[in-house]
Amino acid sequence: MNPPVVRVGVVGAGFVGNALVRLLNDPSRHVALVDAATTSLEVVAVAVEDPKKPRDGIAPELLTTDALALASRDDIDILVELIGGIEPARTYIEAALRNGVSVVTANKTLMAECGTALAQLAHQNGADLFYEAAVGGGIPILRALRSSLAGERIERVMGIVNGTTNYILSKMSSEGIDYETALAEAQALGYAEADPTADVEAFDAAAKVQILSSLAFGTELVGEQISREGMVGVRAIDVEFAQRAGYVIKLLGVAERIGENGISRRAHPAMVPAEHPLASVHGAMNAVFVEGTKSGPLMWLGQGAGGEPTATAVLGDVLDAARNRVSGRHDIPFSVDETLHSVSAGDLTSVFYISIDVADQPGVLAAVASVFGEHEVSIQSMEQSGFGDEARLAFLTHRAVTRNVHATIDDLAKLDCVDSIGACIRVIDGGGQ
Amino acid sequence: MNPPVVRVGVVGAGFVGNALVRLLNDPSRHVALVDAATTSLEVVAVAVEDPKKPRDGIAPELLTTDALALASRDDIDILVELIGGIEPARTYIEAALRNGVSVVTANKTLMAECGTALAQLAHQNGADLFYEAAVGGGIPILRALRSSLAGERIERVMGIVNGTTNYILSKMSSEGIDYETALAEAQALGYAEADPTADVEAFDAAAKVQILSSLAFGTELVGEQISREGMVGVRAIDVEFAQRAGYVIKLLGVAERIGENGISRRAHPAMVPAEHPLASVHGAMNAVFVEGTKSGPLMWLGQGAGGEPTATAVLGDVLDAARNRVSGRHDIPFSVDETLHSVSAGDLTSVFYISIDVADQPGVLAAVASVFGEHEVSIQSMEQSGFGDEARLAFLTHRAVTRNVHATIDDLAKLDCVDSIGACIRVIDGGGQ
Repeated sequence: MNPPVVRVGVVGAGFVGNALVRLLNDPSRHVALVDAATTSLEVVAVAVEDPKKPRDGIAPELLTTDALALASRDDIDILVELIGGIEPARTYIEAALRNGVSVVTANKTLMAECGTALAQLAHQNGADLFYEAAVGGGIPILRALRSSLAGERIERVMGIVNGTTNYILSKMSSEGIDYETALAEAQALGYAEADPTADVEAFDAAAKVQILSSLAFGTELVGEQISREGMVGVRAIDVEFAQRAGYVIKLLGVAERIGENGISRRAHPAMVPAEHPLASVHGAMNAVFVEGTKSGPLMWLGQGAGGEPTATAVLGDVLDAARNRVSGRHDIPFSVDETLHSVSAGDLTSVFYISIDVADQPGVLAAVASVFGEHEVSIQSMEQSGFGDEARLAFLTHRAVTRNVHATIDDLAKLDCVDSIGACIRVIDGGGQ
Repeated sequence: MNPPVVRVGVVGAGFVGNALVRLLNDPSRHVALVDAATTSLEVVAVAVEDPKKPRDGIAPELLTTDALALASRDDIDILVELIGGIEPARTYIEAALRNGVSVVTANKTLMAECGTALAQLAHQNGADLFYEAAVGGGIPILRALRSSLAGERIERVMGIVNGTTNYILSKMSSEGIDYETALAEAQALGYAEADPTADVEAFDAAAKVQILSSLAFGTELVGEQISREGMVGVRAIDVEFAQRAGYVIKLLGVAERIGENGISRRAHPAMVPAEHPLASVHGAMNAVFVEGTKSGPLMWLGQGAGGEPTATAVLGDVLDAARNRVSGRHDIPFSVDETLHSVSAGDLTSVFYISIDVADQPGVLAAVASVFGEHEVSIQSMEQSGFGDEARLAFLTHRAVTRNVHATIDDLAKLDCVDSIGACIRVIDGGGQ
């Protein structure tokens, strides 16, 4: 009897797709298909927009422009979707799953939008839906949450899940440059898009933290808008202040339990203690920090983007799906905990860093301090630096309710002596080690 | 039909065993037993030496003193071995595997000694052999190597896999204290044993790196002696020098490819660049850094010891074994690559840090330098500090063959002007980010 062949269709042949097809064509990589090494993988077709474009490592006869026809073939075992975005990716994935074909995708936007429905569709049709590459590129964090930590009660997940903003913030920190300069450099090096909105406004991190939360806690993936703050307002002077105070500013995706059944999910810049493992994640690297009640702190670090690292994550999923296919089983992608409810970001308490520019004249500090007091936001420390007629006040608050802090900011902006509000950044507590 | 119950026997109820039984008795942890959540786990017996000792969370009627009888029962599905050491653990595990009972163990010593044979025995009898907790405590690194990175060609694995020595080295680094003081503190806090030999002489790290290597590369686990250097010779002044030169001293377990089919496995102190992710792993934390050809650098960080973190790793294995049991399959623990050969540590090249104490008199440096030259070890930099009649010379070499460096040290020790040889420590190259 010949070993069973697992047949794979690939939609999309950009950097990741191209790297994946080359990996799938290298039989030495199939050794991993254990269960007696009787299985081999075969790429049956690759759907692309432009079949005339030369593609290193992909035989021209494999190319097709009809992705929907490929996704609908019932003689494939696994469909790999690497085009991203909601449509037409969703249509292709649904077509495959309805046929009982397992799907591997790197599509964070689609998974955040309708992951719950797609997972149900997969389960109903006896197929797998894997999406390891959707979060953290080559870092195998989703499988760890599904498998190794399956018996663990997780309290908090914090991720540096956007390489673009981490590159920009690392540059601002190491070179003292401002946001615009660091962004331009990131764009020149290909770390940031011409339109960086999805990254710097934390849309990307928000989608990823929803995916992490679904596996860590059992929240649903139904396209919710979660609390999201961009990093555009972070200035060189804020980064400097953080360094002096023993912190590093990072854009984090955070999902955590609040009380017994509350879950907060959000993406925002945060001041991370310099001794925290996340503080030493530099450049375009990604990392996910997990706090379990029994496991204690755990962190995964690796390359969050790039064709080959991402392709290894996709390959891991393809191998898992192939093994399941051969043994006639499928995994359940995630289970939903119906008892959970979302906690609004405004209800959370945190220490905050707040900076404001004021006129340098008598009575200003008293006026400012009384606004803090009116909103029950108590001040832990204050640093004043003068610039001619102006002064900059940098505050660290005691732990305060976020809604009250935002009301404070609104009222401070109304004061005549306040020229402008600078940053308002959460301070993460506790090191992990 | 009632859901199938997976029956678990546990040998050993120390910190890890006790924490495990409490986790297994908590049904909320079983949610993870997906495949339609139809399975539950039952602890049928716990073998201990002293059944009279009170054990929080373990019902007295579960206790037995006859571990061999428990291991030989054919009405259990999974045996968990948590007593450590070669015998009688080996006898118990073999008895279970011969019955087709899957085994979960945290026993690094036994796995390094005869892991290949035990894995074969498991496979022949259709059983699983899982040992996630044997390396890195609660860090799920072994499953990642088996599964997520199964299709990846790994070039190098470097681990801080011994919390005791990392605690001591972290203390020496942060407080400038010497080895003896830091060791005494570690012993007082329970981080080091009264007899710290297994940790500080790197026996523990050597066993763990063999296990990592078997999964990363396919080397065998047959009780080999691999190259091993302890940390007893690392002094406060060496730690200081490292800091000034931009390094941190860590005790590493390293397994790496040398050329096409060579593998070097070794455990030794090393100077790690301060910007490398391993450099910021402090205290008793563990971390494993993996370099793959496609994945790029990856790191896992977490608690390398402790009852509850280790128990979560054991629980992850138990859940995996239970899932396999219910679906009538088993994993292959690792495959052996017969084409590999061990490369002797003496043949490797590295940059070295060498410190020697000499008489502070004319001509000494010339005499010392000529010994380096005779062995083709070229000097990159030298730092001299005087202490009355004595001087201390600290060298960084260019990349040199280890055997030649050791011959240099031997000949330096014979010089009249050399009072003593201090440290000889490898310098790790390259940051990971």
